[in-house]
Amino acid sequence: MSWIVERDWPRLEQGLAGRLRRDCGADWERFIHHPFVRGMADGTLPEADFQRFLIQDYLYLIQYARAYALAIYKADTMEGMRSASAIVSGLLDTELALHIAYCAGWGLCVEDLHGQPESLELLAYTRFILDRGQTGDLLDLIVTLAPCLIGYGEIGARLMADPATRREGNPYWDWIALYGGEKFIGLVEAGLDTLESLAGRYGAEGRYPALLSEFRTAVKLEAAFWYAGRSGML
Amino acid sequence: MSWIVERDWPRLEQGLAGRLRRDCGADWERFIHHPFVRGMADGTLPEADFQRFLIQDYLYLIQYARAYALAIYKADTMEGMRSASAIVSGLLDTELALHIAYCAGWGLCVEDLHGQPESLELLAYTRFILDRGQTGDLLDLIVTLAPCLIGYGEIGARLMADPATRREGNPYWDWIALYGGEKFIGLVEAGLDTLESLAGRYGAEGRYPALLSEFRTAVKLEAAFWYAGRSGML
Amino acid sequence: MSWIVERDWPRLEQGLAGRLRRDCGADWERFIHHPFVRGMADGTLPEADFQRFLIQDYLYLIQYARAYALAIYKADTMEGMRSASAIVSGLLDTELALHIAYCAGWGLCVEDLHGQPESLELLAYTRFILDRGQTGDLLDLIVTLAPCLIGYGEIGARLMADPATRREGNPYWDWIALYGGEKFIGLVEAGLDTLESLAGRYGAEGRYPALLSEFRTAVKLEAAFWYAGRSGML
Amino acid sequence: MSWIVERDWPRLEQGLAGRLRRDCGADWERFIHHPFVRGMADGTLPEADFQRFLIQDYLYLIQYARAYALAIYKADTMEGMRSASAIVSGLLDTELALHIAYCAGWGLCVEDLHGQPESLELLAYTRFILDRGQTGDLLDLIVTLAPCLIGYGEIGARLMADPATRREGNPYWDWIALYGGEKFIGLVEAGLDTLESLAGRYGAEGRYPALLSEFRTAVKLEAAFWYAGRSGML
Repeated sequence: MSWIVERDWPRLEQGLAGRLRRDCGADWERFIHHPFVRGMADGTLPEADFQRFLIQDYLYLIQYARAYALAIYKADTMEGMRSASAIVSGLLDTELALHIAYCAGWGLCVEDLHGQPESLELLAYTRFILDRGQTGDLLDLIVTLAPCLIGYGEIGARLMADPATRREGNPYWDWIALYGGEKFIGLVEAGLDTLESLAGRYGAEGRYPALLSEFRTAVKLEAAFWYAGRSGML
Repeated sequence: MSWIVERDWPRLEQGLAGRLRRDCGADWERFIHHPFVRGMADGTLPEADFQRFLIQDYLYLIQYARAYALAIYKADTMEGMRSASAIVSGLLDTELALHIAYCAGWGLCVEDLHGQPESLELLAYTRFILDRGQTGDLLDLIVTLAPCLIGYGEIGARLMADPATRREGNPYWDWIALYGGEKFIGLVEAGLDTLESLAGRYGAEGRYPALLSEFRTAVKLEAAFWYAGRSGML
Repeated sequence: MSWIVERDWPRLEQGLAGRLRRDCGADWERFIHHPFVRGMADGTLPEADFQRFLIQDYLYLIQYARAYALAIYKADTMEGMRSASAIVSGLLDTELALHIAYCAGWGLCVEDLHGQPESLELLAYTRFILDRGQTGDLLDLIVTLAPCLIGYGEIGARLMADPATRREGNPYWDWIALYGGEKFIGLVEAGLDTLESLAGRYGAEGRYPALLSEFRTAVKLEAAFWYAGRSGML
Repeated sequence: MSWIVERDWPRLEQGLAGRLRRDCGADWERFIHHPFVRGMADGTLPEADFQRFLIQDYLYLIQYARAYALAIYKADTMEGMRSASAIVSGLLDTELALHIAYCAGWGLCVEDLHGQPESLELLAYTRFILDRGQTGDLLDLIVTLAPCLIGYGEIGARLMADPATRREGNPYWDWIALYGGEKFIGLVEAGLDTLESLAGRYGAEGRYPALLSEFRTAVKLEAAFWYAGRSGML
């Protein structure tokens, strides 16, 4: 029996995040059940596709850290500044190094990661986030960052729970276990707490159409990002 | 009989602007009935005080144009972009020149206007506006810009209506007539329209405490600005 | 005899702009001599390709106006503020309407223009410009905006001068004549003046590698923009 | 024999920082030798003045953390992002707590620190920094932040070295020892390294007048900050 959000992670259906996710409907499904994801689940994804993704994902994390730096700047409480700062320093001091180590296992050295240009998909996605962050307020920024966090959590949880997911001899099992694991679930839950807290103070109810619009664009950009750079670099 | 908002300009008590103005209470009163304003009303304001104010007001208008440039950047509709752009070009192409001409009547040449440093009060006020504009969204920016527009309109209307205001031989009568005149009333009304329209779309109701906080700070900074540079330049 | 920059528009080879253009070498050539451009020159570009381009170009102009709004905010002289403001109000008050009228001749109504989503190529290009503008200073912003202005001018001049360009019965002749015409040449010259003036005051010489890097990325994004949306929308 | 920069800390006279400091001349002197500083040196500064300063200094550190968050966002190297992030997390996770503990020794509880409004001097200084940071590039931001770092280091070193400084029974000795101590000297040296490295890559030579102008304004605002809030709150 496969994973069902209502039963297996009901929180993903609640609050502002739940409403946004639900209202994205088919766009959300295309992101979550993308051929790239299915290829990881059954182990058929070509290695070259994954390597290309890993490189772009590394470059994405750098821009993601910039977006959270903007969140420190935009936060209106000490707690908000601290939690955003913890994300930034976590990325810069730990997670990028872990990503490099993981990539080494796929035959990619640090020069491969830094030497690649940013793909069109990466530029579109990350600069859209940064522009929404500069143009809007903290809630706009966090809403636009949310599809990545929530979506990877949902994908990890789904693939972990799905009996059809290949575990033995699947080169992508490590990746699945990372995003379906306890630690990442905790990060998603913390992110949902932040979002819910902001939603209340920043009047999310009254500005929902605009929030949905920027969330949906980010979801579409996430879907496009699986194949980042696939149709050629700039 | 003096000017009463409920009767003479009821719109100033309505909607988001009305609520913000009312909730600022004593802070709003200190801005509107500042000794500097009373000195203009009865013509006793020392000329040197007014000249110093005119210089800082000129420098203020430049930063005000920058703030509305940010409003173009942040606007989410073509109409919003156009109305902010009209304010910016109106300032840069017309109003600054009018201000220079007006200052010439007070013995100030354009070199006096450009040669003066920005006062502490000016820096505090304008950079607070710009920081709120960069940190928050378009509504935060427009709310923070509102005390200037609404307040000058109210002061103009009050002094025009007040029989105690000296008209004959009052060197400040021109200034009063400008801000109490039809044209400026129209600008205030247009600004209130914009604010009300944004309030609806940007969820003002749900984020009112934050809006009040930034509005109140701007009101206090407006009050301080009457004496900008009076206790010495930087 | 075809168009040669050294003879026909030597200014494009001079100063900071000339150095940037030259150092982009093959990337610049790919932008200027793109198949889309050749298809306009000989009239073989499929109409649907041009319509799709026109829609994305309209959406591009809106973001371009936002970028110049940022230039008003960032300008450090009254003259700089005024010239950026003139570009913004020119776009919002005149050029977008002209674009709409031109598109009508191609069977596109204003709903077609506003109803389309932004393509990946558009998002990547415009948000890259805006992020460079927010991250860097006015020179970074203007340098990143320059490939569009200079490139369209060069393309217009080249196609106008090239005897191989089809004039009779070429549905794209109007477009070529617009960008190869006196008025657009004047805009390019004014843009080069601005760039040269900023280069001096903003220390372009000492920071050339960073300027070249952002200019080159913008050139690549311009090249990709000819086919904006061609491989499907988000 | 008193402290002399050429002999005791020659680095403060070198490179971009040295040039900026020297060219500020009398403005720098007024900041460094301000009556408030002399009052700490001989122990005659009224306690209420120091308490008021401590509160505003706490509020300043929060804005200072926001400015360095902007530096993370604006940094163009991983090393630059990491060093700015270390400053932000150092402030938020450690230094603010140390400041609170220090203030407790002066009879100020955390509610005193958070309950106070920002003074005019604080608003002017911090929002000027943030606006320069948003308007300019990373070099503008770091140059505008430099007077605080370098100045406190110089004041600490001077007062430590000056035989006229009262040590016994001087309630301000702790403060002097903090900024004149090894640890703070190390922070200043690291800041000078960063500045020098940026100066090279960001073309400081060619844009020196603009850098001096923003540095000088920050120096004047630092001088005004010693008495932040003294002439009344907003």
